[in-house]
Amino acid sequence: MENKNISQAVIRRLPRYYRYLGELLENNVERISSSELSRKMNITASQIRQDLNHFGGFGQQGYGYNVKYLHTEIGNILGLNVDQHFIIIGAGHLGQALANYPSFKKRGFVLEGLFDISPELIGKSIGSAKVHHIRELPTFISAHHVEIAVLTIPKTVAADIAKTLTDSGIKAIWNFAHTDLGVPDDIIVENVHLSESLMRLSYRINSRRE
Amino acid sequence: MENKNISQAVIRRLPRYYRYLGELLENNVERISSSELSRKMNITASQIRQDLNHFGGFGQQGYGYNVKYLHTEIGNILGLNVDQHFIIIGAGHLGQALANYPSFKKRGFVLEGLFDISPELIGKSIGSAKVHHIRELPTFISAHHVEIAVLTIPKTVAADIAKTLTDSGIKAIWNFAHTDLGVPDDIIVENVHLSESLMRLSYRINSRRE
Repeated sequence: MENKNISQAVIRRLPRYYRYLGELLENNVERISSSELSRKMNITASQIRQDLNHFGGFGQQGYGYNVKYLHTEIGNILGLNVDQHFIIIGAGHLGQALANYPSFKKRGFVLEGLFDISPELIGKSIGSAKVHHIRELPTFISAHHVEIAVLTIPKTVAADIAKTLTDSGIKAIWNFAHTDLGVPDDIIVENVHLSESLMRLSYRINSRRE
Repeated sequence: MENKNISQAVIRRLPRYYRYLGELLENNVERISSSELSRKMNITASQIRQDLNHFGGFGQQGYGYNVKYLHTEIGNILGLNVDQHFIIIGAGHLGQALANYPSFKKRGFVLEGLFDISPELIGKSIGSAKVHHIRELPTFISAHHVEIAVLTIPKTVAADIAKTLTDSGIKAIWNFAHTDLGVPDDIIVENVHLSESLMRLSYRINSRRE
């Protein structure tokens, strides 16, 4: 498969392509040239052609790209065409927000359950799933063939829970806990450091002031 | 001021330095050498020395860095030493999660209010603030000298609301809406594209499968 050697930079742009093409689709645009896409996305047209060539080059000379086809193909490359089963660890405000996050369903992510230690939360239904006690994690993960966990727990317990998860067979973690998890190298970790994004915002405001 | 010409890469690392130094502080570590910091952060020691030199080089030869001093100085550079007043637009799950986000208070961000259009939410207290109707935005922003807005509203209305915000004097937007806001260039926008992060995770899982 040709996408084995794709640079990180290209991969980082794929979700952006997917988003823009999705917006075009919603507006019933059927075809787009690399130069139009370039204006919309603030990427040079030649960069766009190069990027999309990695995936077999879906454009037709003189006709531009078929929006729907390209959207579907990039979706397939991103793995959005297969159902992926996941759980959320931490059923606090952020965990609940994510349980109700419409993008999950649209992208093929199926929420199997939430986990917490708070007695008021356990047994509650949030979004389409139920909150379980965190001690049920190992049996739940193997019974439901869950491969992905979303971590929205305090950073003090994040590394311990991450160990339980990976010992139980979790293959990928979407990590909102603001710390390094120290999991084995073959576990996929995608970090969302909200706090760092907030500090970058603060830096930019502050440097404007001076 | 010397941090005018600092590269984006250095700025991107500052919040990470701040986080690691904060963890060292919590563990009562008083001094650290660039080589120890290097092992912890996975950045070369010479890169660390270079980065920190941008800010006047707080290290003392042979003694390493004073953790507390460096943490405070980087905090000042990031603007975390001044109170910044902000509002949240969209009091849904994500808005409520952010209203209760402990990092805000710790970083000097003061929540003045939330805004929504839903009658069930208006008047409610969330975190330390109240939910107001979105039509009150212009008067509220000028009355409370608010400069920062957090956007957690659907992408279909995000650009319109962003215009109202900037027309009313908002200087910076922390944008969780998955779209481009099209605000004037002098408005600071920091995007959090959760959906793109999720797709990167999906891509990595999918390319592992093949």
